Amino acid sequence: MDAPPPTKSTAENASPARFVIDVEEAENMMKAQGLSSVMDLLPVLVPAAKRLARAPISGHLVGAVGLGESGRIYFGANLEFPGLPLHHSVHAEQFLITNAAAHRERAIRCIAVSSAPCGHCRQFFQEIRNASQIQILITGSGSDLAFRPLSYYIPEPFGPSDLLHDDSPFLLEPHNNRIEIIDDGHEAPNRILGAAVNGARSAHAPYSGCAAGFAVGDGKGRVGGGGYMESAAYNPGMGPVAAALVAYLMAGGGAWEDIVEAALVEKEKAVVPQEATARVVLAAVAPKARLQVSHYRQA
Amino acid sequence: MDAPPPTKSTAENASPARFVIDVEEAENMMKAQGLSSVMDLLPVLVPAAKRLARAPISGHLVGAVGLGESGRIYFGANLEFPGLPLHHSVHAEQFLITNAAAHRERAIRCIAVSSAPCGHCRQFFQEIRNASQIQILITGSGSDLAFRPLSYYIPEPFGPSDLLHDDSPFLLEPHNNRIEIIDDGHEAPNRILGAAVNGARSAHAPYSGCAAGFAVGDGKGRVGGGGYMESAAYNPGMGPVAAALVAYLMAGGGAWEDIVEAALVEKEKAVVPQEATARVVLAAVAPKARLQVSHYRQA
Ligand SMILES: [Zn+2]
Ligand SMILES: [Zn+2]
Repeated sequence: MDAPPPTKSTAENASPARFVIDVEEAENMMKAQGLSSVMDLLPVLVPAAKRLARAPISGHLVGAVGLGESGRIYFGANLEFPGLPLHHSVHAEQFLITNAAAHRERAIRCIAVSSAPCGHCRQFFQEIRNASQIQILITGSGSDLAFRPLSYYIPEPFGPSDLLHDDSPFLLEPHNNRIEIIDDGHEAPNRILGAAVNGARSAHAPYSGCAAGFAVGDGKGRVGGGGYMESAAYNPGMGPVAAALVAYLMAGGGAWEDIVEAALVEKEKAVVPQEATARVVLAAVAPKARLQVSHYRQA
Repeated sequence: MDAPPPTKSTAENASPARFVIDVEEAENMMKAQGLSSVMDLLPVLVPAAKRLARAPISGHLVGAVGLGESGRIYFGANLEFPGLPLHHSVHAEQFLITNAAAHRERAIRCIAVSSAPCGHCRQFFQEIRNASQIQILITGSGSDLAFRPLSYYIPEPFGPSDLLHDDSPFLLEPHNNRIEIIDDGHEAPNRILGAAVNGARSAHAPYSGCAAGFAVGDGKGRVGGGGYMESAAYNPGMGPVAAALVAYLMAGGGAWEDIVEAALVEKEKAVVPQEATARVVLAAVAPKARLQVSHYRQA
């Protein structure tokens, strides 16, 4: 099958895309809809989240809406990238977690999602402390619309405790990776590099020890930066480039082709390096982007 | 953390590694151990499978043993690749399925595995027809050693039926992708290219339509070829290079660095192309390998 035409970018839509709903607005929405619990609001918002999806390969659009412990509500949607292997796809649930992490949300309590979460996402959730208690509702299922704990969706999970025996922070908990950029004189500090450094400082990489950050920017001053998020099961992690692309959308970015600058910050001599793969991703997604690469040593 | 020393390659061990046990040998093993059911033999073999693991990043060795409908028993173990993003890791369960596919096994009935299957693997299994009935036993769990169906480990799964509405074959069912190599005069037919073509013909790529095959060979005549295996959830698929590396081990290959030749066969203008990523993988895993790339059109 050949590539279907790309989905319309959100920037072309009439109203700007929303990614977060604050507590007051959520309360107003509940009143307007006559809802007594914010949990009941989540499934109502799933169609709006789904409209953020970009799935030009599958055409299968997924939206996810999550409630943080702060009371804020986060949206997520799936992203697919023609021209790359499918493991670069971002699932709606991963977008949602990336969104929550970018807003320094400390925990996600409940999620409503339009299709059954795949095993990859059920695994990725394990990185969150007390993951088993996250309540999930599938709006698109034929069955009763009920929240059930993640422990129902993935009993006897493999998770962080199978590999880590220290008190390293879980995903969404504060991370402050001590990194010191190796100044090789090639790159002047700038906004894109700064966003990538912030991504590397907040990255969740307890399994490899190779925290990394990435950032992208366009010609209109929109910058998206994010940090690498590892999974105990390795494969379901979220790469730094994907995290930055999600952040770019949340910063109002529209078409990937608008991206002209990118920065990667990673560890020197990393056993899990990102540069070669980042170049492959950029060549397919944002071919005009110039990539600057900076290495750090652990401070 | 820095890279621990690589695990010993199986080729250095005293006896050659085993990957498949045929029906007669399984029966002899059962008699010798006084076992009445072949299902009871599977957990007994898990330590042998685990010894095939190469996990130089995590040090977390996993072995899996599966019973096919033919009565043959297949081994699998996890593989990790320093120098690459973690999504290139191969899980023991995926190795096992790749092994079964290479032997044209039509279905897997039961699996014993040393640690809890991760969500990524619970998802990958969905590609097999009647996946929900695959019986799984976790030998390393503290709980009772019981086989439980995959539907217990991942209820309400996302799977092929969420995306496919035709009668395309499931993973492990016969595939005969109709491909016609575009002869650009660059590559003479040879054994490595032939193995990659066979991989592409048998690949499971119903979601992208981009079947691909890969093969590697060393200077001693050992060749491993395999086909790309997609997942309905996209990310948990098994790339063609990984499938070929598993096949190379099964062909008696020892150290990845021995690989000197490689071939990729993929669709012209594929929406999900493999070449750029294959080059990144080879550069990290088998830097001496020369890659030949052939494209096909659908016959
Ligand atoms: Zn998913
Ligand atoms: Zn797994």
